[in-house]
Amino acid sequence: MSTSASDTPASRDRPRRGRPATGDATDRRAALVSAARRQFADRGFTGASLRSIAQEAGVDASLVSHYFGDKQALLVATLDLPVDPAAQVRAVLDGPSEGLGERLVRAFVTTWDPHAQVFATLVRTAVAGDLATSVVGTLLRSVVVEGLADRLDGEEVELRATLVASAVLGLGVARYVARLEPLASTPADDVARLHGPAVQSLVEA
Amino acid sequence: MSTSASDTPASRDRPRRGRPATGDATDRRAALVSAARRQFADRGFTGASLRSIAQEAGVDASLVSHYFGDKQALLVATLDLPVDPAAQVRAVLDGPSEGLGERLVRAFVTTWDPHAQVFATLVRTAVAGDLATSVVGTLLRSVVVEGLADRLDGEEVELRATLVASAVLGLGVARYVARLEPLASTPADDVARLHGPAVQSLVEA
Repeated sequence: MSTSASDTPASRDRPRRGRPATGDATDRRAALVSAARRQFADRGFTGASLRSIAQEAGVDASLVSHYFGDKQALLVATLDLPVDPAAQVRAVLDGPSEGLGERLVRAFVTTWDPHAQVFATLVRTAVAGDLATSVVGTLLRSVVVEGLADRLDGEEVELRATLVASAVLGLGVARYVARLEPLASTPADDVARLHGPAVQSLVEA
Repeated sequence: MSTSASDTPASRDRPRRGRPATGDATDRRAALVSAARRQFADRGFTGASLRSIAQEAGVDASLVSHYFGDKQALLVATLDLPVDPAAQVRAVLDGPSEGLGERLVRAFVTTWDPHAQVFATLVRTAVAGDLATSVVGTLLRSVVVEGLADRLDGEEVELRATLVASAVLGLGVARYVARLEPLASTPADDVARLHGPAVQSLVEA
């Protein structure tokens, strides 16, 4: 890359706004992820709009939903995660209410068990800064809490959804970060069988 | 304090081993807390023995139980916490099994709500290092898990006790660290009423 007078260290890290992403779908997708990663970091998940991300990427805004589905999925894409927590939660919520708690626990544990260190790193990074505005906090809110709140019936759905999120978060921290035994080495099916009814009681409250 | 040739920076931080704690009960108690804090940090909670702590403090080992009750209580004393989590858990476990989940959640939330920042700091500090061997990890294991495992009936009591610990930990992280709304600003009684049955299902499993 050539260096010019306008190439300050800051500008070197950021493509010029509105620079059109050339080439094929892979290039446009990568340009969107790159712009989203920067804008989420600068403005937070709520502050960054899909329109401004698309504009920075030089990609038509309508392509965001075509490539990613929604803003949550775009956030997940910026993380380069080995798994897609949004897809997991959607799959669980699409099933019947009966056994939802057990399915949620099983999906969470079977998905993250092979990536325990990634989970631990996400939590460590989130807790070192402001967990509320971190990626983990945003995923908890925008994927788990909002997804569940849309799905639950009855009273106090938002509060019950945050309690389910707290249970799943606690399970992950205890199993992957604190490695609390015997929980840390108990097979996923046994964890789901024992912990599922606790989560279910929040689903049905 | 005078400085001598043997006063290296390290030795200045540590009283000489076996130096007798002079004076009254307050001095002896302080000497024990100080020796315990150092030995827990150096050798871990399991590695440090009450005998070696008493020896370093120059206090008769029998006085440890007199002043503190047990090793967990000595650990809590080293933290200068505004609350005593061991006493909380004991009080809850001393009651009937019926409603134990709700009492545990209520005790946890009412105790930590006035000290939300202390809880957040404990978690941040623990997660930045090795949560498993941190003070939070040790308290979870030695107070919550062991206390519950002694108290529960039925199968898989250790696993169920760690799941209860994970639920309480998750509640604390969601309410005090992630400040997940509406959970973070919901009155303690409502949290206990809604979350209690989830914890109770682990108590009775």
